[in-house]
Amino acid sequence: MPTSSRFTTSQVVNCNHHLYLIDCGEGTQIQLRKYKQKFSDINHIFISHLHGDHFYGLFGLLSSFNLFGRKQDLHIYSFPALQSIIESIFGFSKEKQLYKIVWHFLTNDRPRIILDDKRLTVESVPLVHRVECCAFVFREKEKPLNINKESIAEYSLSISQIVKAKNGEDIVLDNGTTILNHLLTHALLPPESYAFVTDTLYLPEVAGHLKNIGLLYHEATFLESETEEATATKHCTAPQAAKFAQICQPKKLIIGHFSSRYQDLEEHLLQAKSIFPNTVLGNEGETYTV
Amino acid sequence: MPTSSRFTTSQVVNCNHHLYLIDCGEGTQIQLRKYKQKFSDINHIFISHLHGDHFYGLFGLLSSFNLFGRKQDLHIYSFPALQSIIESIFGFSKEKQLYKIVWHFLTNDRPRIILDDKRLTVESVPLVHRVECCAFVFREKEKPLNINKESIAEYSLSISQIVKAKNGEDIVLDNGTTILNHLLTHALLPPESYAFVTDTLYLPEVAGHLKNIGLLYHEATFLESETEEATATKHCTAPQAAKFAQICQPKKLIIGHFSSRYQDLEEHLLQAKSIFPNTVLGNEGETYTV
Repeated sequence: MPTSSRFTTSQVVNCNHHLYLIDCGEGTQIQLRKYKQKFSDINHIFISHLHGDHFYGLFGLLSSFNLFGRKQDLHIYSFPALQSIIESIFGFSKEKQLYKIVWHFLTNDRPRIILDDKRLTVESVPLVHRVECCAFVFREKEKPLNINKESIAEYSLSISQIVKAKNGEDIVLDNGTTILNHLLTHALLPPESYAFVTDTLYLPEVAGHLKNIGLLYHEATFLESETEEATATKHCTAPQAAKFAQICQPKKLIIGHFSSRYQDLEEHLLQAKSIFPNTVLGNEGETYTV
Repeated sequence: MPTSSRFTTSQVVNCNHHLYLIDCGEGTQIQLRKYKQKFSDINHIFISHLHGDHFYGLFGLLSSFNLFGRKQDLHIYSFPALQSIIESIFGFSKEKQLYKIVWHFLTNDRPRIILDDKRLTVESVPLVHRVECCAFVFREKEKPLNINKESIAEYSLSISQIVKAKNGEDIVLDNGTTILNHLLTHALLPPESYAFVTDTLYLPEVAGHLKNIGLLYHEATFLESETEEATATKHCTAPQAAKFAQICQPKKLIIGHFSSRYQDLEEHLLQAKSIFPNTVLGNEGETYTV
């Protein structure tokens, strides 16, 4: 349930100003406006599972795309039932749909690459919850080398020579001189990765699959004292989230998806930090750099 | 569309702490918490029509009722398609529904009394919008007289005598003395009424039906300069809302449902006030006494 200070789940992964939306709880479009995320930069939406706190904001967001006159295709990655829910709701509204939704259905059998574009891949990884549910793993691709602007002028490089240099090749000039690649280019930051893991039982085998992830978000619905309730409702406690991180060793762990019964979250943080020190709380509206 | 300062439509009619919810735009449950309205005091929800800005918050609210362990029946008044939308969404969540939804379907043919309880009646009145849509008119019933506490002691009134006095009868004491009713009781405030009119074309004939309403809420989506767009999308301008009020003569007119293109609403208020002076803006979170 939302509380007066916490909306339900939704996250934006920003990769070079391309926005990938993960989950879309009630009020997501309101929060996107509040935190100044551009609606038209969202072309991919990932819905982990079909419990309301992860997708009830989708109807309003899709309607607003229409009101904004969106023409671009929108890719939705979800379990299949979402398509019929969306179509039933939009069927009754009698509004003309201006853009196309391209559906990509998740499966619960094994990890699969569900998106592979210029910038990154996204993998779905089955979790164990009360309904079918998947984690999402974002992995940036190797970036091409960046060309030094001065070199272009100095050697009067042609466009085809610039492309070659960016791909790591040495360049032979018209006069026969070879310029070594490292004199022409510099590397950008190494590719990064992010895993979003909610809602789920504690699954160490999935943690094994996510070894050396850059940044990890893991649900921590309950405190240790509610371990039994966590297992019964197929959720995790803060220590379980931290144990998951201990296995996959991210640079940082973000915990979130706290039950609405908790006002103060310091105890979640303490319990997780005692096992995995570099843990932070997933706070409303905050930005985390990978 | 919602804006950063305005959620979509939802109102609470509070009649002696019984809450009647009208429309349920996205984020309604968040606002109910923010403005400290008790979820368990809501037993009746009225949905004017099936455009998202009037019902996309219903899914989250109904789910939260379940998480709160609600047992009481919930009465929903709407056009029939809402039932299948709700059932399709809840069917996929696989959660056990703890309380019963009692459906009351609106019709678009003529005004009808759709609720008649101890406190009030609610009438649905067909409007003209892009989909089937109804206004809702709340009319309090005559309240029983209030007994003066001192009279109970002074005349040692029995419970049956108190009931008689509340119903306006004179009381004959055991010694044969008749006590006139006005010496035992005082009247409460006269019954009040409230009409909620959105979304619609300008309909003076409906205004005629609402003559002498106590408080009127009327949509004013656009300014006068957008009259053509208002008509094309079957909405009203601020002056049209005020003309509607001129016909039915409420004590006060509240205008609302402003298009998200308007940041500042002073011009709406000016245009309406020039026709119906006792007009106010329907502001987020504000309480209006009937």
